[in-house]
Amino acid sequence: MEAYFDNSATTKVEESVKDIMVKTMMEDYGNPSSLHMRGVEAEQYVKKAREIIASTLKCQEKEIYFTSGGTESNNMALIGVAMANKRRGNHIITTSVEHPSVSMPLKYLEDNGFEITRLPVDGTGRISPEDFKNAIKDTTIMASVMYVNNEVGAIEPIDEIADIIKRSGRDIIFHVDAIQAYGKMKIYPKRQGIDLLSVSGHKVHGPKGIGFIYIKDKIKVNPIIFGGGQQKGMRSGTENVPGIAGLGEACRIAYKDIDEKAAAMTEIKDYFIDRVNEIDGVKVNSAKGSEGAPHIASVSFEGIRSEVLLHSLEDKNIYVSAGSACSSNKKSVSSTLKSMGIEEKYLDSTVRFSFSSYSTKEEVDYTIETIKSLAAMLRLYKHS
Amino acid sequence: MEAYFDNSATTKVEESVKDIMVKTMMEDYGNPSSLHMRGVEAEQYVKKAREIIASTLKCQEKEIYFTSGGTESNNMALIGVAMANKRRGNHIITTSVEHPSVSMPLKYLEDNGFEITRLPVDGTGRISPEDFKNAIKDTTIMASVMYVNNEVGAIEPIDEIADIIKRSGRDIIFHVDAIQAYGKMKIYPKRQGIDLLSVSGHKVHGPKGIGFIYIKDKIKVNPIIFGGGQQKGMRSGTENVPGIAGLGEACRIAYKDIDEKAAAMTEIKDYFIDRVNEIDGVKVNSAKGSEGAPHIASVSFEGIRSEVLLHSLEDKNIYVSAGSACSSNKKSVSSTLKSMGIEEKYLDSTVRFSFSSYSTKEEVDYTIETIKSLAAMLRLYKHS
Repeated sequence: MEAYFDNSATTKVEESVKDIMVKTMMEDYGNPSSLHMRGVEAEQYVKKAREIIASTLKCQEKEIYFTSGGTESNNMALIGVAMANKRRGNHIITTSVEHPSVSMPLKYLEDNGFEITRLPVDGTGRISPEDFKNAIKDTTIMASVMYVNNEVGAIEPIDEIADIIKRSGRDIIFHVDAIQAYGKMKIYPKRQGIDLLSVSGHKVHGPKGIGFIYIKDKIKVNPIIFGGGQQKGMRSGTENVPGIAGLGEACRIAYKDIDEKAAAMTEIKDYFIDRVNEIDGVKVNSAKGSEGAPHIASVSFEGIRSEVLLHSLEDKNIYVSAGSACSSNKKSVSSTLKSMGIEEKYLDSTVRFSFSSYSTKEEVDYTIETIKSLAAMLRLYKHS
Repeated sequence: MEAYFDNSATTKVEESVKDIMVKTMMEDYGNPSSLHMRGVEAEQYVKKAREIIASTLKCQEKEIYFTSGGTESNNMALIGVAMANKRRGNHIITTSVEHPSVSMPLKYLEDNGFEITRLPVDGTGRISPEDFKNAIKDTTIMASVMYVNNEVGAIEPIDEIADIIKRSGRDIIFHVDAIQAYGKMKIYPKRQGIDLLSVSGHKVHGPKGIGFIYIKDKIKVNPIIFGGGQQKGMRSGTENVPGIAGLGEACRIAYKDIDEKAAAMTEIKDYFIDRVNEIDGVKVNSAKGSEGAPHIASVSFEGIRSEVLLHSLEDKNIYVSAGSACSSNKKSVSSTLKSMGIEEKYLDSTVRFSFSSYSTKEEVDYTIETIKSLAAMLRLYKHS
């Protein structure tokens, strides 16, 4: 048996996503900027994908821009908004548990004269709306808060924050990194008061190297990549038509029966959490049910180093992450777990299990039995 | 019959490129940052592609960085070098015929305190090495010159410029946009004195949404996208494994019998130029033989608007560009042709025919006969 429980790192591409990509590479391979039929054809794929995505968010098509992925979407949102709005102020509010694709552009901005407030999180990984409210200053121009934490699946209080921003009467642009949330739960930026939303293709069974950003109409954002003026000058470069078409198809599939799929993933997660609790010396860092994201369970195994467990599971065709796999800095200790106040002894003993709508209870059973059979031996190993 | 003569806009993907992409999407779909086998597998594809590309340029593997395409490569080179070296000076030398993915980042730098010298070109589209030499100042930190012009196929005097930089004894970083050159002619950055080289995948029968940049070891470049620290922190974001693997395969094929393929393309181009000269009122803006790129023929048709010709040819399944298709600003007049001093009457009567190693003389014959049969009618149309 095999259990790929690393879906928050990346997912297998859907069959129909692959099909549309092959079609746009081998047959309808034109450049959307070409004036002839081959170009117009290619442009239709881009238009169609934009339509699908806009319909999932209930936003306008012109509010969707394609990027090379989640990292670029986050960079574009943060640097683009900061640069376009710097005359109004230099203060940005964020959390202490953001993904590096948010925290690192913010570090860059900090090095270039911006002031960053990083809010702490509680033991569940969530910031406090009250803290957020107190952090607002006259100079605050932007807030960036992730929807779902990539390491533990905590859902941040996005609606409350949007509400606080609205009530503040200030012009604070609200960016949400939804890379771990999109396709797992319904997000309606307009209704929820979100101004910019970042999404990645390869987290939702779409292609790698593609993502999108929702930018609410009239929000001022500077481009960060300059050139031929594609996408209304906001993101130059020949459109990645196969990637875009594939992303559109992946989003279409993700939103087909999204509630049922989310419920199924939550059931798998809850089943996994219940069963993993059968094991001694286990601490679950993720919430059951709809308190947490449907697809992420972070678990600390006292006395077992996460990398050792990861490789032992790998031998049994079970694939998981030690912390977050999105960073190439593979050995750094998780800042999310630290911020959550997780005890020192658990910090390098934590493994993330991330599910997809294709995950099964049989895979969970197989994983639990495998961990059970390994735990005693691995704990011995740790102490030797 | 069909004749796709818009290969400088984009190319059809190679069958084997598609195959490796499908494999990395459906089977070996891991995230290279994951520590388990699925991640290691994925990383191997990236390593292999980097090996292939380094071998085509005779450079080190660590000097190759993957980007989302030619536009990002050019932006990273220009903005990255300017920002990393701004303490040494603020002057950059370039040409007046660069692609927008070079000229627009330079415009951005100009708006942010850099001084840009844009050298004029002669009637063939080339800058003068003497002009380049005279443009060098104490404050010059970088030069950016395209290898092959995308509109007319002019080959810039790269070796002479590198030589002038070397003889100047100054620390001038030399960037070359090789997006229309790579895969069509051999380029050896080290031997040729090139410090950074930008390449796009979809111009060489590779995927869209992927490209690379060669950065000579020890050249100081700041990243323009920040995050998880992938690619030694130079380009964060989960690697686009299918795109990278596909690009590697496309480069491998492009370099297989590259001399023979270039000779075959040159033969097609020369044959096309000879035959198009049979038509009255025609002005060819590209050089025959190895004086120009093997694959580009720019032709002005007196009294025929380029868009009209383009659409008339499209009706006969012949696909060409009016000016350059890489810009979404579809109606702007070509700055290359203007800079070359092409007469006003030809400016909006110019069409680019761009070939690939799959182009045939039969397709050329078909195209010439079609233009001949259309010309009189189209000229009538213009004057009506």
